[in-house]
Amino acid sequence: MKTVSENACFGGTQGVYSHTSVTCGCEMTFGLFLPEEARDGPVPVLWYLSGLTCTHENAMTKSGAQVWAAEHGIALVFPDTSPRGEDVADDEAYDLGKGAGFYLNATQDPWKPHFNMWDYIATELPALIGENFSVDMTRQGITGHSMGGHGALTLAMNLPEQYRSVSAFAPITNPSASDWGRKQLTAYLGADETTWQRHDATVMMAEKGFDGPVLIDQGTGDQFLDLLKPEALAAAIATRRQPATFRMQPGYDHSYFFVATFMEDHVAFHADALYAL
Amino acid sequence: MKTVSENACFGGTQGVYSHTSVTCGCEMTFGLFLPEEARDGPVPVLWYLSGLTCTHENAMTKSGAQVWAAEHGIALVFPDTSPRGEDVADDEAYDLGKGAGFYLNATQDPWKPHFNMWDYIATELPALIGENFSVDMTRQGITGHSMGGHGALTLAMNLPEQYRSVSAFAPITNPSASDWGRKQLTAYLGADETTWQRHDATVMMAEKGFDGPVLIDQGTGDQFLDLLKPEALAAAIATRRQPATFRMQPGYDHSYFFVATFMEDHVAFHADALYAL
Repeated sequence: MKTVSENACFGGTQGVYSHTSVTCGCEMTFGLFLPEEARDGPVPVLWYLSGLTCTHENAMTKSGAQVWAAEHGIALVFPDTSPRGEDVADDEAYDLGKGAGFYLNATQDPWKPHFNMWDYIATELPALIGENFSVDMTRQGITGHSMGGHGALTLAMNLPEQYRSVSAFAPITNPSASDWGRKQLTAYLGADETTWQRHDATVMMAEKGFDGPVLIDQGTGDQFLDLLKPEALAAAIATRRQPATFRMQPGYDHSYFFVATFMEDHVAFHADALYAL
Repeated sequence: MKTVSENACFGGTQGVYSHTSVTCGCEMTFGLFLPEEARDGPVPVLWYLSGLTCTHENAMTKSGAQVWAAEHGIALVFPDTSPRGEDVADDEAYDLGKGAGFYLNATQDPWKPHFNMWDYIATELPALIGENFSVDMTRQGITGHSMGGHGALTLAMNLPEQYRSVSAFAPITNPSASDWGRKQLTAYLGADETTWQRHDATVMMAEKGFDGPVLIDQGTGDQFLDLLKPEALAAAIATRRQPATFRMQPGYDHSYFFVATFMEDHVAFHADALYAL
């Protein structure tokens, strides 16, 4: 593992590190914020999964999350959104290939050898961080924005023993029924839609739900509402009687100004779950 | 004036606007955050002047200032750092020409016709904003980072009737004696150093000081300490017996992680002055 940069930040450290990922078969880069409390012992951690076209850097610089993580004494991980490098398959579209890993393990060529973001986020990266930093991997929460909200919700519902709490900002809620999903799930997983189900938050909510707190924020002014389909997940939550807070926020769009506005609430929400006895 | 974008943000609006600047002789772009309170009447305003290579966008997306401006009910202006466009002179170096206006009115060719950031910030832009938005230009505070800290300090000390409070993050404090200054002041103002004095915060502090609150933060881990020369301004403040808070912050560097860390304090500091009776 290599240190790309470390900056003092809200009494702690905002680091950027790179490492050779076995899961993705390439060099991967991630951001990690450690609050001051990490010097005295392992702190709980909140994963932030980013959206289409993002790298590890977007939320690290634009979400304003560190101030709240410092206030609550929790670490933040900002992973990349796909494998990277010249050997990695790509597509001309912004929403397939690099920057668009969709948080799954691809089973189809040409994506199969590298596009394994599910295992990377759920297994390889937590192990690496747990070994190298003062982070308590028995206390993980997960959130994300847009494609990253999809990732957070599907990871949490599939791996409830791993995540104590889940939240999302303007998530892609129903990729099986959206142009932000059908193309990608077909490319990465193939045409058999039964393999898509665990990667669809609305389907997972209907089938499994989540045995922990759930918070979702969606702006009413979001330019991508037709692709995000908040109504699908909202209905699935209500139908299941799933304890959850689903907020339609008046006027907010899909930008990081929206994410930043509600970040304080999300970090506090996860901190409550992660510091609960 | 044209609206480039408007995003809902912390209950208010983060806007980006462009206009034809008479002062700079080109199209200029600025960011303006208006808190919710601006709907009920004019709110006080804090100017944020950015550093070398920045545009209006850097602090608007990376400083996290809006959350605190919303909390205190003040507007934020994020101006660009120089004139722009194909007609505007430039230099190959990052620290001269575009992105490096140094907040002065150039008297030398080829800079003279466009590089008038002093008048732009002090006169043209406040008039434009005051006419078009719910902002009270009788209550202005000013801050900035690096070259923008230089701008904030020199504008405030030269125009004390205009600014009630001044602060700075890692300012260039003594450009007459720094490689971040001598080259630029010579290029923009000519070799006669008497014309430089009003653009040197250390000189201005020694000669005039500021009849209002002053707050300066400087990281001890800043990679540019030799160019910023905090010791020059600190000594001038102490020598003058100027009421001021000058903080050397342990471990912080020159990045926006440093700026974001102390932004809450700076916005609260200005809000105190701007809401004082």
